Amino acid sequence: MTGKTIGELSLGDSAFIEKTVSESDVYLYAGITCDFNPAHINEPEAAKGRFGRRVAHGMLSAGFISAVLGTQLPGPGTIYLGQELKFTAPVYIGDTVRAVVTVEEIKVEKNLVRLKTTCVNQDGKTVVEGTATVMAPKA
Amino acid sequence: MTGKTIGELSLGDSAFIEKTVSESDVYLYAGITCDFNPAHINEPEAAKGRFGRRVAHGMLSAGFISAVLGTQLPGPGTIYLGQELKFTAPVYIGDTVRAVVTVEEIKVEKNLVRLKTTCVNQDGKTVVEGTATVMAPKA
Amino acid sequence: MTGKTIGELSLGDSAFIEKTVSESDVYLYAGITCDFNPAHINEPEAAKGRFGRRVAHGMLSAGFISAVLGTQLPGPGTIYLGQELKFTAPVYIGDTVRAVVTVEEIKVEKNLVRLKTTCVNQDGKTVVEGTATVMAPKA
Amino acid sequence: MTGKTIGELSLGDSAFIEKTVSESDVYLYAGITCDFNPAHINEPEAAKGRFGRRVAHGMLSAGFISAVLGTQLPGPGTIYLGQELKFTAPVYIGDTVRAVVTVEEIKVEKNLVRLKTTCVNQDGKTVVEGTATVMAPKA
Repeated sequence: MTGKTIGELSLGDSAFIEKTVSESDVYLYAGITCDFNPAHINEPEAAKGRFGRRVAHGMLSAGFISAVLGTQLPGPGTIYLGQELKFTAPVYIGDTVRAVVTVEEIKVEKNLVRLKTTCVNQDGKTVVEGTATVMAPKA
Repeated sequence: MTGKTIGELSLGDSAFIEKTVSESDVYLYAGITCDFNPAHINEPEAAKGRFGRRVAHGMLSAGFISAVLGTQLPGPGTIYLGQELKFTAPVYIGDTVRAVVTVEEIKVEKNLVRLKTTCVNQDGKTVVEGTATVMAPKA
Repeated sequence: MTGKTIGELSLGDSAFIEKTVSESDVYLYAGITCDFNPAHINEPEAAKGRFGRRVAHGMLSAGFISAVLGTQLPGPGTIYLGQELKFTAPVYIGDTVRAVVTVEEIKVEKNLVRLKTTCVNQDGKTVVEGTATVMAPKA
Repeated sequence: MTGKTIGELSLGDSAFIEKTVSESDVYLYAGITCDFNPAHINEPEAAKGRFGRRVAHGMLSAGFISAVLGTQLPGPGTIYLGQELKFTAPVYIGDTVRAVVTVEEIKVEKNLVRLKTTCVNQDGKTVVEGTATVMAPKA
């Protein structure tokens, strides 16, 4: 149950997860994180706001990035060191988010990998972009 | 239901949320994000790994940061633009995480606020650190 | 809190549970079982597939069968030994499933009961059929 | 996002999922399926019963089998036709279940696959055994 070690990774390697974000996802996420911002769980307030209706938490999409890193690329055994995130567009309840990670830099001597991390919606619009830094699993 | 506008914010303003992270938090979070890394949901595998037992997803703690920003400081109406995160120590199931945000920079003309964001556990150990960039709520 | 013992059961005895299967049921079930088959949690992918939209996990309907056995007929104290299942039609999110169990055979000396188990949707269409084998509760 | 087609499958192919079954898994599963058998959610009653403490629903472990079939082997696009199950030992809350599926028979002309399906706990004890019948994904 170990992911790819540093020697098994190549520049350009890529993996993704894709999910339709349901109302129950957003509500459970709100409950877990205490994030009851009305933008997420109050339809009339959200309707008055910038996005016009309830949106998912940006950090929920970031969770999909973590999922790809920890389950696929590099996979189990990965140590997540850091993440830079830009939230570039809203994710509405019912949108389908694809989180893609792509290996951009490998530092073999330090066992470090830098990956481009992007989330896009069903229309191909980028909703989150950024960079992850991880330690690759040990053999 | 509007948070603090740019004119109502001052350098050093601070707010926090604190929660004991339960097994059910971690399991629901895994289910929402598709993150079934064994480090989070497989005790025998986790016992063999770097941390010795199941840990919460680092990005779950980042969700607490988002919660403080969106519900308290600046609060509802905040637009989350970006977040830099470093995961500096594990959060074990049962640990209590305090997410603290502190205003570090205010750009009135662009309506932008930069905040220091830190998560510490019940022993005062920093588990996540970083910086958030947000647009303040409009009046 | 004990169900019907072998002597209290008769051929033809029947009981059921009926529930409208919500999106949150399907999403939580996916999270509990790690079953993120896109047919269940990815609307655009499901739309391209055989069923045209997201369907519930077949095994979720099987859970309703288990529920009737364990709470009603025979009820608490029942030991579930085996189940044969045929998944004969999809259950869409929003469908209402009725799980019916009917006593078909009683082996008093071995304390064994065989029950016909059927799930139908709101249109009377059979979605799951099969047979359960259980040990009846002891007095 | 398509799993293995009939031509890509070989006898003996195998895949698995492994998870520590938490109390929250069992309670959410009870809520989804209406299965409030005291054996699962009533500790004093369970203590008086055959297993001595609360156990997971047998059909929850069957859900792990479905997860492997639908996400890994054969994977997305698989049509689940039938499942035979024997529940051979209890799964206690906190146990770690590994669901393994192995290709046993391939009928190319009918696009049908039969797989051996087994769940074992952390001590290697078999808790569920049986056979799945599926249609392989179409290219």
